[in-house]
Amino acid sequence: MDFTHLLADRTKTMGASAIREILKVVSQPGMVSLAGGIPAPESFPMEIMGELTAKVIDKYASGAFQYDLTEGFPPLRTALVTYLAQKGIQATADEIMIASGSQGVLDAVAKVLIAKGDKIAVEAPTYLGALQAFNPYEPEYVRMDTDDDGLIPESLEQVVQTHKVKFIYLVPTFQNPTGRTIPVARRKRIAEIVQQYEALLIEDDPYSALRYRGENLPPIRTFAPEHVLYISTLSKVFAPGLRIGFYVGPPAISRWMVIVKQGVDLHTNTFSQALAAEYLAGSYLDQQLPKIVNLYRPKQEAMLTALDKYFPNNFMWSKPEGGMFIWAEGPQGIDAEELYWKAIEKKVAFVPGKYFYTQPGEGLATMRLNYTMSDEATIDRAIKTLSEVIVKELR
Amino acid sequence: MDFTHLLADRTKTMGASAIREILKVVSQPGMVSLAGGIPAPESFPMEIMGELTAKVIDKYASGAFQYDLTEGFPPLRTALVTYLAQKGIQATADEIMIASGSQGVLDAVAKVLIAKGDKIAVEAPTYLGALQAFNPYEPEYVRMDTDDDGLIPESLEQVVQTHKVKFIYLVPTFQNPTGRTIPVARRKRIAEIVQQYEALLIEDDPYSALRYRGENLPPIRTFAPEHVLYISTLSKVFAPGLRIGFYVGPPAISRWMVIVKQGVDLHTNTFSQALAAEYLAGSYLDQQLPKIVNLYRPKQEAMLTALDKYFPNNFMWSKPEGGMFIWAEGPQGIDAEELYWKAIEKKVAFVPGKYFYTQPGEGLATMRLNYTMSDEATIDRAIKTLSEVIVKELR
Repeated sequence: MDFTHLLADRTKTMGASAIREILKVVSQPGMVSLAGGIPAPESFPMEIMGELTAKVIDKYASGAFQYDLTEGFPPLRTALVTYLAQKGIQATADEIMIASGSQGVLDAVAKVLIAKGDKIAVEAPTYLGALQAFNPYEPEYVRMDTDDDGLIPESLEQVVQTHKVKFIYLVPTFQNPTGRTIPVARRKRIAEIVQQYEALLIEDDPYSALRYRGENLPPIRTFAPEHVLYISTLSKVFAPGLRIGFYVGPPAISRWMVIVKQGVDLHTNTFSQALAAEYLAGSYLDQQLPKIVNLYRPKQEAMLTALDKYFPNNFMWSKPEGGMFIWAEGPQGIDAEELYWKAIEKKVAFVPGKYFYTQPGEGLATMRLNYTMSDEATIDRAIKTLSEVIVKELR
Repeated sequence: MDFTHLLADRTKTMGASAIREILKVVSQPGMVSLAGGIPAPESFPMEIMGELTAKVIDKYASGAFQYDLTEGFPPLRTALVTYLAQKGIQATADEIMIASGSQGVLDAVAKVLIAKGDKIAVEAPTYLGALQAFNPYEPEYVRMDTDDDGLIPESLEQVVQTHKVKFIYLVPTFQNPTGRTIPVARRKRIAEIVQQYEALLIEDDPYSALRYRGENLPPIRTFAPEHVLYISTLSKVFAPGLRIGFYVGPPAISRWMVIVKQGVDLHTNTFSQALAAEYLAGSYLDQQLPKIVNLYRPKQEAMLTALDKYFPNNFMWSKPEGGMFIWAEGPQGIDAEELYWKAIEKKVAFVPGKYFYTQPGEGLATMRLNYTMSDEATIDRAIKTLSEVIVKELR
């Protein structure tokens, strides 16, 4: 039996994911992938995992394996109070909700808020996983302009003036895909606009802990706490396979997100949440984070150095102070997807940037480069190969 | 700011959950709850958890903590081939998909299939968690009649003749809420009907491993493999907090469910899946399952005995050979919700059965009684108290 005639309309729209198709070749043997967005396994605190699991089993016993509250495991919510306070976010344990990765938060936001045809404001380019969470609820996207400092506040203001948007979605720090960070002055201006127009901002912050240089910046939520739903994750500072995301939002939204989550997965994995609670409260994270930063900093420097050394003069790229990505842009007329297929032949993969745009025809000359999964020498070689491919193409 | 004006229509329909409201009092101190649907913590294999986690960390190392395939962790899918074969279900590892609890499967089914207004056929009464998964996609429910042997095939046939249903949802073994099991002859007839009308059946099987008496029955899927999406879970035979559900379905549906799940949570917790893989492959389950059955059998017998001893003659109840629930029904005119509030005063809780019906006015005199969480003496006392409340009410 073929039951495709039973599919809901929303499913048909999820159809052909071009990026999923083109990335299938990335797992070929011998491929150097700058395409992923995956933390290095060496960043996981493997040397304490045995100790940590033993501690959790001893401390919480069967409580770490039982059904738990949809809102989240109370000791983790308590531990996150301090973690968030370090980022400048004041929240009680009751206001902090746990989800199955930040993807779980994005799904709940979408399910609670998006009716078919609703307008969602997103950066151009924006995070693809967010679009995957939003798409099944059939929104329309309104694009906002960005520059080297991320979202341009004037573009945001124009969008909220012109369109009735359900919410604005932003990754303000070390954005995926560009690595760009919105400076403080702009953050304040964005907060003002959001307040003035009584808009709801979804601030997605998976990367801010991965800072290799410069000063930490306050989340936009600190400037407009009533108008911002702040999302973060332990995937980049603990282990992504444990699927721990969390958020602090306007209570009128959060309480619905909890109800929605109950229908989706009842609650997030209790054992993982208990591990995360001990990881935070037991100061393991404080010891691990410098190691993670020291692991990635030289990788990022290797990529920036290699880009300087090898890439053609008519290419530009972001120089982020942290995160996992560098964004490169070639001269007009360059087709990064064509480069992709040529690079694949030389066993180097990246993501053509156009897939991060909601409007066709944008970002054709752009590419996202990830440096977390390879060692410095491999990164140097891969960028060299990639520039050889580009130079050949430019001729 | 109050952002309730931003809520999608679907969210408003999720509004006041009456059952959630009335069950709030269940957590009062001193309450004996027959209301839950929760495995006893003593059923978890706590004595091997340390060993199991150590084994997983040793065997899979960082692989147990990394992002993984949306379809599921390959060693778990492989281990489930044997587990499902024991139930009579032939499936390759590639055909078995993992989700975050069976709730995650139900959400994916709903998201892939249900368009607003679509008709879904459900038993009267049916599992509430399934309705919570389906409701946000705004279906209409078509009820099917049941008796002591569960779904009546003639009612199913009439429904698929009269209505264009997207799918049929069934819990054929030790159903939640009734504890009823559909006998083999009816299973075969249901399979025939489903095949004849080219319908899709969602067979939800969380409880069949919890059999205290009698013979195992083949899943309906074994009689109509192309027309049945079979769902099960490790929540009742390992640990619910690990959130491991799985399914085998028509490939044309499964492949969309994987795409949908990617937007919802990327993938299910890798560490939990690795634990589950070792629990199954290392024969820990084979050792644990008899212990779980031996733990619950006397609890269930205690409840059946107490019902015989104390309950008024004009009450009937199911006598399941397994599972977690007994379903009791009083004479017409009895209002089980009224009984509920009287019983709460005496510190005994259960679930009024009407909440498991999709049509208002049905099941007013019914109640769901759970026996997994209390010891035998407490069960005896609680049923005695409950019958005193009933007798007083009947006067």
